[in-house]
This record gives sequence, C-alpha cells and structure tokens, in this order.
Amino acid sequence: MPFKCLSLYFPIIALLFSSASFSEELVDIMLINGHVLTMDAKLTQYPQGFIAIKGNKIVAVGPQTQAKQFSAVETLDLDGDLVLPGFINTHTHVSMSLFRSLGDDVSDRLHGYIFPLEKEFVSREMVYLGAELGNLEMLKGGVTTYADMYYFEDEVAKAVDKIGLRAVLGQTVIKYPQADAKTPKEAIAYAEKFIKKYKSHARITPAFAPHGPYTNSTEDLQKIAELSLLYDVPVLTHLAESQKEQTTIAERSDGLSPIAYLESIGALNKNLVGAHVILANDNDITLLKKNRVGVAHNISANIKSAKGVAPVLDMLKQGVDVGLGTDGPMSGNTISLIDEFSQVAKIHKLWNKDRSVMPAVDIIKMATMGGAKVLNLEDKVGSLEIGKLADIIVFDTKSANMTPMYNPYSVLVYSAYATDVKHSIVDGKLLMKNREVLTANEQNVIKRAHEFSNKVKELLISQGKSIL
Amino acid sequence: MPFKCLSLYFPIIALLFSSASFSEELVDIMLINGHVLTMDAKLTQYPQGFIAIKGNKIVAVGPQTQAKQFSAVETLDLDGDLVLPGFINTHTHVSMSLFRSLGDDVSDRLHGYIFPLEKEFVSREMVYLGAELGNLEMLKGGVTTYADMYYFEDEVAKAVDKIGLRAVLGQTVIKYPQADAKTPKEAIAYAEKFIKKYKSHARITPAFAPHGPYTNSTEDLQKIAELSLLYDVPVLTHLAESQKEQTTIAERSDGLSPIAYLESIGALNKNLVGAHVILANDNDITLLKKNRVGVAHNISANIKSAKGVAPVLDMLKQGVDVGLGTDGPMSGNTISLIDEFSQVAKIHKLWNKDRSVMPAVDIIKMATMGGAKVLNLEDKVGSLEIGKLADIIVFDTKSANMTPMYNPYSVLVYSAYATDVKHSIVDGKLLMKNREVLTANEQNVIKRAHEFSNKVKELLISQGKSIL
Repeated sequence: MPFKCLSLYFPIIALLFSSASFSEELVDIMLINGHVLTMDAKLTQYPQGFIAIKGNKIVAVGPQTQAKQFSAVETLDLDGDLVLPGFINTHTHVSMSLFRSLGDDVSDRLHGYIFPLEKEFVSREMVYLGAELGNLEMLKGGVTTYADMYYFEDEVAKAVDKIGLRAVLGQTVIKYPQADAKTPKEAIAYAEKFIKKYKSHARITPAFAPHGPYTNSTEDLQKIAELSLLYDVPVLTHLAESQKEQTTIAERSDGLSPIAYLESIGALNKNLVGAHVILANDNDITLLKKNRVGVAHNISANIKSAKGVAPVLDMLKQGVDVGLGTDGPMSGNTISLIDEFSQVAKIHKLWNKDRSVMPAVDIIKMATMGGAKVLNLEDKVGSLEIGKLADIIVFDTKSANMTPMYNPYSVLVYSAYATDVKHSIVDGKLLMKNREVLTANEQNVIKRAHEFSNKVKELLISQGKSIL
Repeated sequence: MPFKCLSLYFPIIALLFSSASFSEELVDIMLINGHVLTMDAKLTQYPQGFIAIKGNKIVAVGPQTQAKQFSAVETLDLDGDLVLPGFINTHTHVSMSLFRSLGDDVSDRLHGYIFPLEKEFVSREMVYLGAELGNLEMLKGGVTTYADMYYFEDEVAKAVDKIGLRAVLGQTVIKYPQADAKTPKEAIAYAEKFIKKYKSHARITPAFAPHGPYTNSTEDLQKIAELSLLYDVPVLTHLAESQKEQTTIAERSDGLSPIAYLESIGALNKNLVGAHVILANDNDITLLKKNRVGVAHNISANIKSAKGVAPVLDMLKQGVDVGLGTDGPMSGNTISLIDEFSQVAKIHKLWNKDRSVMPAVDIIKMATMGGAKVLNLEDKVGSLEIGKLADIIVFDTKSANMTPMYNPYSVLVYSAYATDVKHSIVDGKLLMKNREVLTANEQNVIKRAHEFSNKVKELLISQGKSIL
C-alpha cells in the first residue's frame, strides 16, 4: 500500500489505537489539567482536575489522576487555567445592545428616551441583529445561560439557536402598543404561539414577560399567571424597581407593595422571576421566600439609575433564591455577567458599612447555582457534577490582572475581565475556543451593528435630537 | 545592477521618495484615520483625525486631511479606532500586585493583614518583580502615567525605566520600621538620595510619600514639606481616609480635621497629592482649593473597604483638581484606571440620588487632564495638543462591548474593557502594538509572579494562616 494511500486510513487507525485500551471510555470532549471549581453544594475544588463530556452531559469530573480512564475526540489541556460552570445572566434585554451608549446620563430615561427610541426602531430585523450582537458579547464573557425580556422574542430565539447559548426567552406583554402587538391581548397570543413553538427546544425555555406590575392590568397579570402554570413556563418581570411603580400599585391596591399586590392577585409563585426587587421590606422578602419567587439582582443598572440597592443580604439570609443579572445594555451597559461581580461585592460592603459582607465566593455562587435556581434550571446547570448538562467555561490565568491567584473566587470577582474567558462549552458543544467564536462571524455582526447605529444616529440628528 | 542588489538600495530609494515632496515633514510616528478625542479645554474631537509625533512630542493633531503634509517612519492606520491621551493613575502601590487576592473580604485588613504581610515579604526583589507585573498591567490597560507610594521606590524606578511608562514615584516615610528604613529619619534620607538620583529622568518624577498624617509625626511631616519645596518635588500621602485617622489627628491637634491639621503645620501646598480624601467637610474642601492640593479619587478601594464616598462633586464644583486612582492591587484590585470609570459614574449617581450627575465626559476629563493637574504635569501630558509629550492610547472599537458608539465618552466609561486598548505610546515611543508589549517579556514576568505567590502561600499555610 503506497504511503499516499496510508493517510486515508489514518482516522481508522487512530480509532483502533484510541480503543486499544478497553478500560478507557471514549468521550467527546475532555478538559485536562484545569483548576476545577465545581460550585457543587460542598464547593468541591480540584486544583489539578479534569472533566469528561459525552453528548451534552458531564460524565466525569474529578482529580486529574482519573483522566486516564477516558479518551476523547477532543482534548483541551488547560495548563492550570480555571474551569467553572458557565455564568447565568438572569435578566437582560439583549437586543437593546444596538442602543448602547445612548442617553446614559439622562434623567427619566425610560419614558424620555427608551420608549420613544423603541417606538421608532424596534423591528424584527433590529431584534435579531441586536440579539446576535448581545449573544456574542455574552458568549465571549462567559455567560452560558441568560434570561431575556423583549419584543419579537422569536427573533431572539433564532439568534440563540444559531450562536448556541442556553436561554429563557420572555415575550413581552405591556399595556402600550408595540411593534409586535397592538394590545396586551395580542401580546399574550403572540407569547402563547411562541411558547408552543419552542417548548421542546433543547436550549430554549420560552416564557411570558409582563413588563411590570404597574405597566400591566390586574386582569392581564392574572391571565399570564394562569397560562404560565398551564404551560409550565417562567414569568419574567420587572418588580419593585421604582418609586413610580410603588405609588401606582399602592393606588391600585389600597396601599399594597408591588410584591404583596402580586400575591393578592395570585401571581406570586415559583415560576416568577422578579428583576431588581430594590424596594422590598421584610414582609416582601418573606412573601418571596414563601412563594419561591426567584430574584434577579442587577446592581450595575440599579446604581447607575440611582434607584438604590436591593436588600440582597437579607434575601440570602431568608433563603430567597437570588441570581445576578446585567439588565439591558442601555442600563448596565455590558451584558457579560462578570462585570457585575466586583460591583455586587463592593456596593453591599459600602451599603452595610462592613468590608467582610458579601465575600467573593457568595458572588460566584449567585452567578452559577443561584441563577440556575432562579430560573428553575438547578437540576440541569449551575454546577459541574456528573449527569448535569455540560455548560462550562475556562478562564485563562496567564494575564497580569489574574496574577497571582491565592484565592480563585477573589480573582474572579475582583480582577478578572470578561476577556479572560478562553473557552466556552454549552450543551456539550464547544462554542468558543481560544477566544474565537466558532458559531458566528463576529466581525461581520459588529460591522452590521455599527451600520445600524449610523442610521439611528442620522435620524436622531435629523430630528434635532442630541446624542447624549 | 542585478535585481538582487536592488533590494539593498530600497531604504535609500524609499527615503528619496518620502522626501520627494518637499512640502512633507518627516516625523517618527503617524496615527491616521483615528477618531481623536483631544481632551483639550474645548474637548475638540476629530472623528476622522490624525496625529504626528516627532521625538517625544506631538507635532500635529487635526483632521485627517492635514495628514498629507507629513510622512512618517512608522504609520498606524487606525480604521476609526478611538485615540486619546493616556490615562493617569494618580494613586497606587504597584508592587503590591504580588499580594493580589489575599484578604479581600477581611475586616481591619491594613493592620491585620497587609502590615504583617509586608513585614515578612517586602524586599528589593519583591518590589521590583511586583513593579514589573503592575507596570505591565497598567500599560496593557491604557495607563501612561501613574503615581506610586511604596518602599524601595528605586526598584520601582528600575521597572518604570525598563517598561517605559511615566511615573511619579514616592518613597515612603512612616513611623514604623520597614525593610528599607528602620526609622523615619532613615526613610527621609533614603528619599533624598532617591530624589537626587532621579531628578533629571525624562519620565520619572521622584517624590516623598509620607504614609499619612496619623502614621507620621508632626515634625516629620513638616520636614518633608520643607524638603519638597527645596527639591520642588511632589508629596504623595493618604489623606482623610479613615475614622481612625480622623480620631488620631483630632487628639493630636485640639480637634482639627486631618486637612486643617496639615494646613496648621504648614504642610498643605501645591506639591501635595492627597489620596482618598473621603472625610472632607466644606471647610476642608475650601482649604484644598486655596492651597492647590490635588486629590486622587479611588472609588473602587474606598467602597470595597466600606469607608465611604469622597465628596468629589463638591470638590469639582469648588475647582479642586481631582484625578482618578486605583489604590494598590490588594485594594482596587486592578490597577488599570479604566476599571474605575463606570464605578465613579454609578456610585456618585447612587450617592446623590440623581442619574444625571457625574456624566461620562467628566470622568474622562478626570482620568486625563484632571490627573495631569493633580500631579503638576498639566503642561506636559493629559491632552493631545501640539507641543505636549506624546503619551497616547488607541482603543480598538471592533469588540461587541464597544459597539455601537453613539457617544465615545459613554462607551469608554460604561462598556470598554482594559483589554480594548490596542496600542500605547509613551514619551513618543510605541510600548504596546496590537496588544503586544514591546519592552518586556510579559509571560516571563507573570510566570515569576506565580512562583513568588506560591512561596508566600506555602509560608502562610505553614504558619497555620488561612488563605482568605
């Protein structure tokens, strides 16, 4: 057999060799020589660790010495880099990435800036392009699962499907007319259709997203609560975020807080994810715990908007499930969850006048298992354990800001950048390798986003509006 | 002449061609097709701009159309990337990078953790290695000038000399015995020797660094103030940072605040740079302005330590010179100034319950000209103007987080990463090109830093101390 032909047989020969040791189990991907933070209940770490992935699941995780029991189609030698479950962003509006850097320092931005902008520019095309851009940003920053609330959520789903992240996608219901629905009734019908279409998707959980208690009627909130139990899907909403909301709800309900009001109308249950929850008193926190409501804590957006600091220490003490979120890119302004970490730590220390509260490890817990619990995905993701879905990220530890690493949780919280994420695996599939996105043409998306923003800018200028 | 030989004449031919148009001025470096934010008094921008550098100075800055008047040895085509004056970090302890991620969430960390650690580990070698690591981190994050306070400051100077940044380096004077001086008298002598050695260095400004009013005697503070005027060098100090300091000084001075106390002993003047200045009342702010004292605002460290928020809005209103600082890497924990930006914006909005205060442009002002004024370097750096030293950074605008860019100041403050800095020029010399450091072996420094930290970790564990 000539040498030239031999090469054609290489795959078969390789296969024979790889299965030569019959004690070895063949898996799809192996991560070897990593420093593994499992984020399981005991916070097990393997400073010299390995992980084996078969299909979309973790089939082994442990000390590097166990790696010899496996062989893999693809092996990544991590040389001491940090491995952990992917981050879970429990609240964002991904498509708003196309409006980022507009109106950042403007008063009453929601009604004075965002709503008018959306009226003008929200379309199927805009939602898809913004979702592509935002999904890329999150993928590159270590987010593997996120929860989104917006319009044309089926367009967001297309971007998620393409780029490969896991997501809970909430179709917005709001009392004002929008590009995708003229009335709340239409919006609920849109959501139902979307839910039916995506209910069985491997990575997408469709959901309802009533904008907030004060921007929806009692009837619509009750209808959504009822349908969410029927379809067994989450309900994502803004909750206890602003004084304006508090006043509106108090007027509507004889003085109830937004959380107590939702309970009174039967809309507080384990399917509900409340974003922000800044204005929560002790009774509210008790209601959240009792009804197993998840909370998405968005420190960056909350302080930028001068709204206040959610009582997260109290929530955690009472056993409420709290995850971290970024809010939309006009609010946060980045949607890589890691940018929230040090702010969560520092703001709660400042607010409670105690530098020992909210230690780094608690923040990584919220960013992983905490978020998984909030989204009712704790049996599937949030920690690196056998049988769980393989949503895994690797941090390069060879940058100056990641050096030294006495305490890996501290490094992740206080000095790591989104750009230190080196590899990302979602549902067992390698989506980013050595910072290269494998499922989309990143530069092409960025180019199209810049072109879109030029059109927005031209129109705003032609209308005599200043770019603030 | 054979073709082979022709190539030998290429440089001469190229020179002939480049000087063929006699109207063209030959410069060393040209940056073309950039979006230039000059940060001059009028905040002039050139959306299609260029800059020409000759020796260590800016010889032209303006619209791209003027570029044809120049030819350059090296031309960087920026394709719309953002160009601005390098950032000025007005307060750090660069060598403490080697202790990063130790004791982050521990109470009374200064006396319980930092001082004992320093007693054990500070040495010439440690200071140099830590300075190398920290200088690399700052260079890669867009800092071109920084102010440092530490021990063996001549070792920091060696690292600055090698890596190429600009720095104001303050030799510490403190009442406790240290590795480089057993007494304050020895420390002052050490500082004087250091100042004499570096007084004429092109990029290094040597300085005194009394640790703080409460950790030095009145006599030593007066002696330092006197010598600083004699040598005409800055005095860097921690000021109005903690309750403990306030109490100690009040006891020493019949109830004066630290700032009023320094004025009363004749130590408040334009050479002084006060770091933190959290506990400053209206009278203190008036004294700072009257005596032209510069303030280094370190939001990240101040809130992480739960110390409070410096009244920077009032300082700016009164015309006090305020720059931004990171504090040391055990406090901040990164020393790339850009990590402070969004925190400065958001915390002052939260603290003042107004999302319109501290707009993005004011933060970029503090990070550039503000810092230059604080360090009395405003005639040399801080803005991109003809005749100023060429300290220039370029931000890559083609990352998802930098997209779109309606308002460049907003993007820099709210969504840019240190890792978006693409090129850095200091004193006319290209130090980083396409994120590659040209003056040091980055990975070698990081490797040595990890090795150092392993020794620290082993010793701490052998002493029964936990790594918190």
